[in-house]
Formats: sequence, C-alpha cells, structure tokens
Amino acid sequence: MKKITLLLTLILVSITTKAQEDIIIGEKFTIHSDIMNEDRTYLVYLPDSYKEPDYGKAYYPVIYVLDGETNFLTTVTIQKTFTRGMYNTMPECIVVGVVNTNRTRDMTPSKAVWLYNDKELFADSGGSEYFTDFLTKELRPLIETTYRTNGYNMLVGHSFGGLFAMNTLVHHTNTFNAYIVLDPSLWWDNRKVYNEAKEIWSNTNFEQRSLYIAMANNKYKTDEEQKHSKTIKEFCDGILYSAPENKLNVNWKFFESEDHGTILMPAIFDAFRTIFEGITLPVKEIPSNPQIIWKKYDKLSQRLGYTFIPDEVLLDNIGNYAITVGEKNGAKEIFKYEKKYYPDSKKASDNLSSL
Amino acid sequence: MKKITLLLTLILVSITTKAQEDIIIGEKFTIHSDIMNEDRTYLVYLPDSYKEPDYGKAYYPVIYVLDGETNFLTTVTIQKTFTRGMYNTMPECIVVGVVNTNRTRDMTPSKAVWLYNDKELFADSGGSEYFTDFLTKELRPLIETTYRTNGYNMLVGHSFGGLFAMNTLVHHTNTFNAYIVLDPSLWWDNRKVYNEAKEIWSNTNFEQRSLYIAMANNKYKTDEEQKHSKTIKEFCDGILYSAPENKLNVNWKFFESEDHGTILMPAIFDAFRTIFEGITLPVKEIPSNPQIIWKKYDKLSQRLGYTFIPDEVLLDNIGNYAITVGEKNGAKEIFKYEKKYYPDSKKASDNLSSL
Repeated sequence: MKKITLLLTLILVSITTKAQEDIIIGEKFTIHSDIMNEDRTYLVYLPDSYKEPDYGKAYYPVIYVLDGETNFLTTVTIQKTFTRGMYNTMPECIVVGVVNTNRTRDMTPSKAVWLYNDKELFADSGGSEYFTDFLTKELRPLIETTYRTNGYNMLVGHSFGGLFAMNTLVHHTNTFNAYIVLDPSLWWDNRKVYNEAKEIWSNTNFEQRSLYIAMANNKYKTDEEQKHSKTIKEFCDGILYSAPENKLNVNWKFFESEDHGTILMPAIFDAFRTIFEGITLPVKEIPSNPQIIWKKYDKLSQRLGYTFIPDEVLLDNIGNYAITVGEKNGAKEIFKYEKKYYPDSKKASDNLSSL
Repeated sequence: MKKITLLLTLILVSITTKAQEDIIIGEKFTIHSDIMNEDRTYLVYLPDSYKEPDYGKAYYPVIYVLDGETNFLTTVTIQKTFTRGMYNTMPECIVVGVVNTNRTRDMTPSKAVWLYNDKELFADSGGSEYFTDFLTKELRPLIETTYRTNGYNMLVGHSFGGLFAMNTLVHHTNTFNAYIVLDPSLWWDNRKVYNEAKEIWSNTNFEQRSLYIAMANNKYKTDEEQKHSKTIKEFCDGILYSAPENKLNVNWKFFESEDHGTILMPAIFDAFRTIFEGITLPVKEIPSNPQIIWKKYDKLSQRLGYTFIPDEVLLDNIGNYAITVGEKNGAKEIFKYEKKYYPDSKKASDNLSSL
C-alpha cells in the first residue's frame, strides 16, 4: 500500500510539475549608481506587443514609478487594463519601478529635521537632487539604450514621492512629460516646494507638460496632521488659476472615499485616463470612417505637445473588426496606416495582402 | 576596436544577466477535467505570508476569479493593495483565476441561440451546470488539498461571468460565501436568472452570504443594448427590498464614470472593501486598548456568518508598533493572541520572549 501511495504521489508530483509555470509580470535588475554610491534596484514591465514577432518594432512611452516595491504592480495592472486592444484608454507603455533604499533621503528637497518624542526624525533628509540626477543621468539613459522608448516620459509619485515629483516639475520642468502626483507631502519644510512653485510658476512655460494631482480624504485629527491636506488644497486652488496660460495641462481631483493609503490605485487609474483623455476610439464608427482615428490622435498630440501614433495592436484589431462588419475599404485604409507606421510589421503586410 | 566593443558587450551582458530576476505573481497550472472532458488552466496567487517560515501556518479564504486571463491580475493587485500589513481592508486570501476555453458555453445557464446578420450566435450556450460541477467537484477539492484554505470562498464574475455567479447564488446558494457580480448579463434568455431569482428569493435563507453587484454606466444606443443595464437596475431595486430578512448581506453600486469594460478594477476594489467593511483597525488606538481588535473581528464574523481571525502579519506589526509607542502591556496582549491563533509561529514566540 505504501508503495502504491508513493507511486501515486510521484505521478501526481510529475503531472503538477510538468503543468506548472510562473506568472511573470516583469523583471528586476540591479545597477550600481555612481551618483548615489550604492546599488539600486529597478523593475521593468514591457507590453505584450513588445516581443510579438509579427508586429513591427514599436517605440513606447515610459512610466517611471517611485516606491516601486509597492506601486509598480499597481501601475502595471492599470496599464494592462487600459490597453486590452480595442477601447484603449492610454498608449501601451513601458513601466519602470524604482525601488527605495533610503526613501526620506531621496525624496526630500531639503534637510528639515523634526524632533518627535526626543528622537530626530528625517535626520538624513535633503537628497533629492542626487536622486533626480540618478533618475535622469543614470537610470533613464540605461532604459533608453536597452529598450525601444519614444521619448515621452511620465513620473508617478505618492506622499514623499509626490513631493519629489512636484519638486521635479518645479525645478526640472522638462525632465518628464507628465507628472502624476498623489496626495503629496507639500507641507515639507514649511511648504518649501509650494512656496517656490508659487514664486516661479507664473513665469514658467510648461510647454504642454501634464500635471495630475490627487488629494485624499484624510481624517487627520491634530492641526499638525491636517497641514498635509490643507497645503495640497491651497496649492491646487492656486495653480489651477494660472495653469492654462502657462501651457500646463493640469487636473486635480479630491477622492472622497480614499485616505492617504488607499488613494493609490483609484488615483493612478484616474490619472492615466485623464491625461490621455480623448484617446479612446469609438470602435463601431471607425470601419465606415477611419479618419476618426487620425483626427483623435492629432487632437491628443496637439494637447500633449507630443506626436502620438496608434499602437499597432489597435490598428490590427480595428482593421480586422472592419472586415467582420463588411467594411473592406475601411479595413484597407487602416491597414495602410499600420504599414506606414510599422513598416517592418509582418502582420501589416499579411493584413494588406489578405484584402 | 571591434574586439574592445565585443569585450565591453560581453561584460555588460554578464552584469545584466547576473542582476536579472523575474517578477513572479503566481503560478499557472493545467489539469484535466473529467466533467468538462478537456484540459483546464488555472492561476494561483499565494499571499507573501504563506511561505514565510517565521510565521505560523495560517489558513486562508479563497477568491475564485472567472475570466482569469484578464481578471486574475486585477484581483491579485487589489488583494495585495488591501493587505499591506497595518491598515488592512480585507483578509489575506489565496486567489485562483479560472482561464476560459469556451466562455459562452460555460457561463450561460440555458441554450438561447440568437440570429445576427444570418449568423447563429451563442450556438453552444447552456453549459453552466457542468462548469459549476467542475469548479466545486474538481477544481476546489484540488485547491483545498493542495493549499491551506479556511473554507471561506468568494466568486468574482463579470458580464457573462456575472450571470454565472448570480445563477450560482440562486441555484447553489451555499457554494460560495461571497458573490461579486460585475455588470452581469442578466438579460440572458429573457431574464431567465432574474425571473428565477424573483420566484425563489423570498423563500431562500441565504445564511449570511454576501452579494455585491456593480452596475456600469453603459451609454448603449439601441433598445436591445439598453436591456443590459435596465435588467440589472430592476433586479437590484427588487432584491434590495427583501434581502435583509433573508439573511443576505447585499450591496449594489452604480459606477457613473465606468462602462462595461472599465468597471472591473474600481468595482472589485469597492466590492472587497464593502464586503469586509469594519475590518480595518484604528491602528493608533490599539496599543492602549487591544480589545478593539477582538471587538471588530467579532462584529465582522457575526455579520458574515464565518469566524475570522486577524492575519498574523497584522498582529505582529501592530504589536511591534505598540512597543515603539511605549505600550508594553498592549504589545504583550497582542502577542499572546498571536501565539494563541498561530501556535507554531516562531515570530510569536520571539515577540513574546522579547518583552
């Protein structure tokens, strides 16, 4: 009996092992940063189409996500949700998560030590300029030489990460194209970034950068704690006023059901949808009128100050949808554009020759 | 020069390769189903604590997610978001994604063929009883013998999957403890499930099952299309009325900003938070009054008809937080419970002996 049990176990184990496969959503790398003088870990997600051999070689926007250990997965999941292939809400993007070593040091733009119960808090604050240099002079060049990137870069930061992102927009405005700033710690060091922004904001030409700010409904009790939300509110009320004339695409939203911790997913979700508003195609109208695609992408490109082209998977799917509803001419026009924008695509050639 | 370039390339490749690691969120398995007479693929996510050797062996609720190919990742991400270790919004759960082979066949409770442009749609519909049997007689027993499960089971279904989940609640009420039903296709076959529910609903004792229904803001144009949303609305208005006296914990929500496709993430997010409402601990109040934990879990357990205990990571973190704010007695009480509920935990023993 024991032998049979062992045999059964072995068979079961071998079946299970044979059928088992890891579900992988990205890769983790470590590089040595000379600027930070330490090893840094980053996480990379590539869209499914990136390695699809039948598609042409596409170039992708990059989303840099701070606090990568927690926020990378959330951002990847939203990116996948919003690019399922027909009613896409944002372009396919590469996502890069940056993992912390010393969060307070890297995210804060000044040294501001707090005394709390006789302990020094934030004693090593004030290192954000080094971290900015690491991101822009070491990490990004590495990403851009390793992967097919298109030069449109986004930065996502929450809390201290939001402070960092806002500081980057204020002092290194052109470094990223879109800034997603989630319940940021603008109270830092007597509203340092807030005050600096206020001073230089009206003289800055943002050249169609996008800024999305999310504010949580924090039920803080003490006056000191309430400064967090109060500062964000005052900042938003202030900047919304002068943003359009300075060519900043700005949006901010108050999340009534979310606190400082739960705001991340709903806010990143809303941020991408808001920044790329207008990108979703009215699929059913396209087969008889493919020009809608270019009109929508032209409008989007003008608003964001960057020329976006439709992802190939979108053109492929919608072209094939046009065939199923009997609109061969529409399909042909769509596939011609697929070939134009993705000249080395086998799929585009096959699609065209099938008509 | 060529040699140097080659050498440099080789060095770079070796550095990159050395530092590279897959980011894995779960495992994919295939089993042969005798009931379905085909191979079926399922995906499994285990919480981080599951394999943490210092923690005691815990038993976990299981979330079964239909349309696993798309909705597994979303559910896992939300589960991870809501169980970060202090202000947890739901218990740590195992997530099982069920991948489709023939979606229409498996999700529909009756054969109802449609003629559309002279083509037969849904010709193979009506197989949901087989699929229910597969889930409950093959897949679930396998999950329960392979992993440490606690018997609290949830089912998540969207669209046709929502129809399937609702049909399961109506005809196999006790199969799952909580049903998350997202913009369900209740219009199916002249409102079959709707009508059956209406007929037997008032005579059913739901024994504290939970039902969460999400309804999208679908801007459908034709009367035929509008039936989708209209049927959900009428169903919700109807069942909310008699649910409490039949011991069904029911909630439904209209998502004004979401359509049939985008509703998934916001609705699953809201569903878990709603079903486990009251589980989040007021962390700062606990050290001086640990009894709050048991009061909250008792209340939750009574409402859901299942005895929930706090995850060990929660007790570990909050106990250690109590120490940092100088509440040793509170910490001791929390760690005693940790030891009681997780008797084989090394962490619990270490925590207790450290005081």
